[in-house]
Amino acid sequence: MLDTSTGNARSQHAPEDGRARLRSIDEPEDLRKIAREDLPGVAAELRSELIDIGARGGGHFAGSLGTVELTVALHWVFDTPHDRVIWDVGHQAYGHKALTGRREGLRRIKKSDGPSGFLRRAESPHDHFGAGHAGTSISAALGMVEGAARAGVDRQVVAVIGDGAATSGMSFEALNHAGHLGSRVRVVFNDNGMSIAPNVGGLNRTGDVAGYAKALGLDYLGEVDGHDLPALLTAIEALRDAPGAALLRVRTRKGQGFAPAEADPFRWHATAPFDQATGERKKSAAPPSWTACFADALGRMADRDERVVALTAAMPDGTGLDRFAERHPDRVYDVGIAEQHAVTFAAGMACEGMRPVCAIYSSFLQRGFDQIVHDVALQQLPVTFALDRAGLVGGDGPTHHGGLDLAYLRAIPHLVVAAPRDENQLQHLLATAVESDRPFALRFPRGAAPGVALDPDPKPLPIGRGELLRRGTDLAFVTLGKPIAAALSAAEQLEGLGLSAAVADARFAKPLDEELICELARATGRLVTVEDHALAGGFGSAVLELLAERVPEARVIRFGLPDDFIEHGDPDEQWQQVGLDPESLTERVHAWMRGGGCGV
Amino acid sequence: MLDTSTGNARSQHAPEDGRARLRSIDEPEDLRKIAREDLPGVAAELRSELIDIGARGGGHFAGSLGTVELTVALHWVFDTPHDRVIWDVGHQAYGHKALTGRREGLRRIKKSDGPSGFLRRAESPHDHFGAGHAGTSISAALGMVEGAARAGVDRQVVAVIGDGAATSGMSFEALNHAGHLGSRVRVVFNDNGMSIAPNVGGLNRTGDVAGYAKALGLDYLGEVDGHDLPALLTAIEALRDAPGAALLRVRTRKGQGFAPAEADPFRWHATAPFDQATGERKKSAAPPSWTACFADALGRMADRDERVVALTAAMPDGTGLDRFAERHPDRVYDVGIAEQHAVTFAAGMACEGMRPVCAIYSSFLQRGFDQIVHDVALQQLPVTFALDRAGLVGGDGPTHHGGLDLAYLRAIPHLVVAAPRDENQLQHLLATAVESDRPFALRFPRGAAPGVALDPDPKPLPIGRGELLRRGTDLAFVTLGKPIAAALSAAEQLEGLGLSAAVADARFAKPLDEELICELARATGRLVTVEDHALAGGFGSAVLELLAERVPEARVIRFGLPDDFIEHGDPDEQWQQVGLDPESLTERVHAWMRGGGCGV
Repeated sequence: MLDTSTGNARSQHAPEDGRARLRSIDEPEDLRKIAREDLPGVAAELRSELIDIGARGGGHFAGSLGTVELTVALHWVFDTPHDRVIWDVGHQAYGHKALTGRREGLRRIKKSDGPSGFLRRAESPHDHFGAGHAGTSISAALGMVEGAARAGVDRQVVAVIGDGAATSGMSFEALNHAGHLGSRVRVVFNDNGMSIAPNVGGLNRTGDVAGYAKALGLDYLGEVDGHDLPALLTAIEALRDAPGAALLRVRTRKGQGFAPAEADPFRWHATAPFDQATGERKKSAAPPSWTACFADALGRMADRDERVVALTAAMPDGTGLDRFAERHPDRVYDVGIAEQHAVTFAAGMACEGMRPVCAIYSSFLQRGFDQIVHDVALQQLPVTFALDRAGLVGGDGPTHHGGLDLAYLRAIPHLVVAAPRDENQLQHLLATAVESDRPFALRFPRGAAPGVALDPDPKPLPIGRGELLRRGTDLAFVTLGKPIAAALSAAEQLEGLGLSAAVADARFAKPLDEELICELARATGRLVTVEDHALAGGFGSAVLELLAERVPEARVIRFGLPDDFIEHGDPDEQWQQVGLDPESLTERVHAWMRGGGCGV
Repeated sequence: MLDTSTGNARSQHAPEDGRARLRSIDEPEDLRKIAREDLPGVAAELRSELIDIGARGGGHFAGSLGTVELTVALHWVFDTPHDRVIWDVGHQAYGHKALTGRREGLRRIKKSDGPSGFLRRAESPHDHFGAGHAGTSISAALGMVEGAARAGVDRQVVAVIGDGAATSGMSFEALNHAGHLGSRVRVVFNDNGMSIAPNVGGLNRTGDVAGYAKALGLDYLGEVDGHDLPALLTAIEALRDAPGAALLRVRTRKGQGFAPAEADPFRWHATAPFDQATGERKKSAAPPSWTACFADALGRMADRDERVVALTAAMPDGTGLDRFAERHPDRVYDVGIAEQHAVTFAAGMACEGMRPVCAIYSSFLQRGFDQIVHDVALQQLPVTFALDRAGLVGGDGPTHHGGLDLAYLRAIPHLVVAAPRDENQLQHLLATAVESDRPFALRFPRGAAPGVALDPDPKPLPIGRGELLRRGTDLAFVTLGKPIAAALSAAEQLEGLGLSAAVADARFAKPLDEELICELARATGRLVTVEDHALAGGFGSAVLELLAERVPEARVIRFGLPDDFIEHGDPDEQWQQVGLDPESLTERVHAWMRGGGCGV
C-alpha cells in the first residue's frame, strides 16, 4: 500500500501547487517520459487532484480514486492511444480523463460545457469506445482485437471491467467468446467488491475469479494489489506480454486515499461538492424526488399486500429500493447488473403468485426488452416495471436518457403503459399496476416531484382512463407524465393570447383513453401532444394512430424529443433545447394555430 | 450406454404395437407407477415413438432424442407437475410433451391444430414456463423457487438447460444470482456439445463446467451419462436432495438412437419428414429462400470488399452464414447465443474499419436492443443488422414472429431501417448498408423469395428513396418488403372494382421517402399502408407522423399485425388471419373507399 491509502481526509493530498508533475502531463506520452520509480508520486498527485475536483464540483467519485494507480500503470505500460484502453461504464475513468488532456475540463464534468461523465469517442482520441451502460468493454475490445488483426494493425487492446459490471450477462458472453477465440484481448478485472452498492452474485461470494476465468478459457495471470504501483506495473507488463486472451485481477479499494469514501464507498460512489477536511457535503434543499416518492408508494403497497416484492439490477440507491428496504428489508432482491435475468426472474416469481415490481431505469430496461416480450407479456404475467429516469436525465447524457421506452413498450401486446403527472398519481398508478394482474410499465422522470399532497391510500385507477384537467375550446393538449405541468402552463399563456386550450392527462400511453381523446379531437379539431420521449413511435404517434381511424379530420401537432441523441447538461436547459418548456410550447402552438407552419 | 444408443436406423425402434408401456402413460403419475428397473424399456419406447413422429411429420428432432432418458428420469424422480421441470427453448422437450398427455398431438406439432414446437403455459399444466428463446429457464426456475418459498409452498424446481443455451448471458446472470442466494434451485446442464450447430465458447473448449459452476457458488454434483438410465436416476435423486443451489452435468448425445442423426446432429436438429429405414428426407422443390439469397448477396459483397465480416449468434444455418462460409470461411464469427455481445463485438470491429454484418433473426435481435442504441447508433458506427424472420414465421409461433422490429428500431436516432421487396432489392439494399458507413438495419421475411432475376452486381441505392411501382389516381398503397406483392395484387383487383390504385415501395422505414409519400398523399388524398409488423409504432405510424405534419388533409388506413400475439400455424393461413392477403386487402380497402368504415 502506498502512503496515500491511509490517513485522514486532509493529510492525503498535496495542495494544488504540489502537483507539478501532474501538470506536466498533457498526454500519456508525457507520462511515459517519467521514470518508473517516480510514478508513485504522479499517482499521489493525481489522487489529490481528483479529490479536489470532487470536492469542488461533485460527480462520480469513489470509483476513480480506486483506479488511480491502475490508470497510471496502463498509460505508462501501453502505447496509448495507439494501444487502446477500453474502460467499462466510466465511473472509474476520471483519472484517465485527467491524463489524456482533460484535467482542467474535469472541473466542469457533466456540465454542458464540460466533458461527459462517461467515455465518449467524440470527446477524445483516447476514448476508443463510448460507455455508460455496464459490461460492454470486453465485447468492444475483443471486436477491436479481431478487427485490428484483419486490418493488419499491430495494437494491444485492454478492457478494464469492474467486478460489478462483470455481473452483466454480456460480459460473460464476451469472456466466453474471448476464451474461444484465444485472441490477444487483455482484461483487467478491477475487483473492489462493489457495484455502486456492494456487489452481489455467486462469483462475488466465492471470490473464485481464477476458476471463472480459467473455465472460460482465458489465461489467468493472478491477482495484484492495485494500489502497490511497482507490483502493478510488473503485472500489467505481464498482461501486455501474454500470448493469448488473458485476465489479470487487480484488487482495489473504492474511495482509496480519502478516508470518508473508503469508509462508505457506497455513499461516495457519486457525490455533491464537499468539504475536503471534514467530508461534509453541501446540502441542497430539494423537494422529494420521484424516486423517493416511488419508494414510499411501493412501501405502502407492500404494507398491505404480501405478494409485493421489489427487484433492482444493482441500483438500490438510484431506484429508491434502499429506502424501501428500510421498511421491508426482506422484500428486495438485488440481482446484479443483470436486467435480462431480472425480468425473467420476476416472471418466475409471478408464476408463484407474487407481484414483483422491477425498478429499473428506462434506458437500462432496454437490456430486458426481449424478456419483457417473451417471458412477461406473451404469458400475461403480472410483473410491474417501474421505469425511473424516463425522459431527459441531465448530466448523465445520451446513454442515460429514457427517451425510447414508449416506442418499444407500446408495441408489445398485453402490456399496459402509464406515466403519472405527480407523486399522488404515481402511488395510484402503482396500485393500479400491482392490483391489475397484468404486465404493467410505469415511467417517471428524474428529479424532484411536483410536491403535491398525497391521498392517504394508493387506490387503483381504471386502466385506459385519462383525466381532463382544464377545459378549452380552441385546442386541446393531450399528454401524460412530466409534460403535463408544461402543458398547463402553456395553456395559461395561450389564454392570454386569446386561445382557449384544454389540457388532458391521458395517464396511459397504452391503452389510450380513446373516448376522451376522440371527444377532444371532435370538439376542438386541434390536438397538441407533448412527450419527453422520441417523436418516432411515441405517445403522439399513438394518438395519430387512433385519430386516423376515428377522427381523421382532426389536426395534430406533436412535441417531443427530436430524432437525435441529446448531449449531457443541465436538465432545464435540455428541456428548453428540445422545446418542451412552457414558453416554447406556447410560441409553437400559437404559430401553428395561426397557420404559420407546424414549428416542429 | 443402453442398447438404444447403437445400431442402424431400422433396428433401434420397435413397431407401434411394441409401445404398450408408453401408451399406458397419460400423465407422469402413470410413469411413476412403473418400477425403476422397467424404465429403460419405457425410454426405448419413447425414443421409438419420437423417431416415428419425426419421420412422419418432421419438426425439431435430434435434441429430444438426446433427452429421452433424462425426461423419463425427471418425471419419475420428481412429483410433477407439483414439482416443476422448466425446459429451456423446448427443442429437447418433445419427450416431455409425450409423457404429459400430448403423445398423439405431437403428430401435428407446430400445426395450427397441434401443440407448439416449444413450451407454452397455456398448453399444459406441465409447461410451467413458456420458452422459445434460449437461456431463460434458470431465471424462471429461480424466481419460482423464491416465489414458492414466499408463498409457503414446498416444491422442487428444476431447470434443464443445454450447453448451447448456457452461452447466453442471461443464463450466467441467473446462475450467478442462484449462487448468491443459495436457494434450492436445481440445474440440469444438458451437455451434448451442440447448440443448433456445434457449440462454441471458451467453456465449451475447456469443458470445465465444474469450475464454472463452483466459481458461481453452486454445488456441483458431478457428471453422469445421460443415456445410462440407472445411473441417471441416482444422480437426479441426488440433485433432488441437494441442500442448496445445485448443478448436475448430464452428458447426452444429440440424435441418440437414430444413427443418421447421431452422425450429423447439426443437420438433424430439425427435419422434414424422412424414411426411417434410410434416413432419406422428403424433398420439397422450394424456390431459393430469402435466407439463401441474403447469404449469396453477402458473399458477393465480401468478394469485393475486404472489410465485410459476418456474425451469427449460434444460427449459422438459419441465417445462411453456413452457406456464406463455404465461400468465405474466414469471414464468419459464431459468437454463441449471445446477441448482446454480438452487437457490441461488431461495434468494436467497426471501430477498426471493418463492416460487420450481424445476421440475427428479428425476434432474437430484441436481446441486443440496448447495444444497438448504446454501442452502435449513438456512436454512429457502420454495423449492418440483417434481420431474417421479420414478420410472421409460421410454425414457430409467437416467440419467433418478428413483428416488433420497426417499432423498436425506428425510434433509434441515426439508424437506417429498410426492407427489400425481392432478392434483387435485397442485394442492392445490402450494398447500400455496407457502403453507407452508417448503422443500418435490413429486415426480410422467412420463406421463399419471389424468385426475380438478379442484377449482375449489388449496387447501393439512395438512402430514403422509394420507388413508384404502379400508377393510380384514387388511392395509393405505400408499403415495403414482403407486403408489396399483396399490395400489387390488391391494386389489380381494385382496378376491376373501378378503383385506380398506385403502389409505392417505400423501401425505407427510416428515413422515409418524404417526397414520394407526400406527393402520393396530395395526388390521391388516400393512402393505404401495409406491413407485416405490429400496427403500434410501425411503418404506418411513421407515415402518419409525416402526413400529420406535411399533408394533414390526407386520409390513411393502416393494415398490419393486430395488437396480440399470433399463434403458430401455417404461414399463409396466418397471413390471411391478419388480413394481409390480397383478397382481404382488396375487400377492406374497397369498403373504406366507399366510406363503409375503416375495416381494421
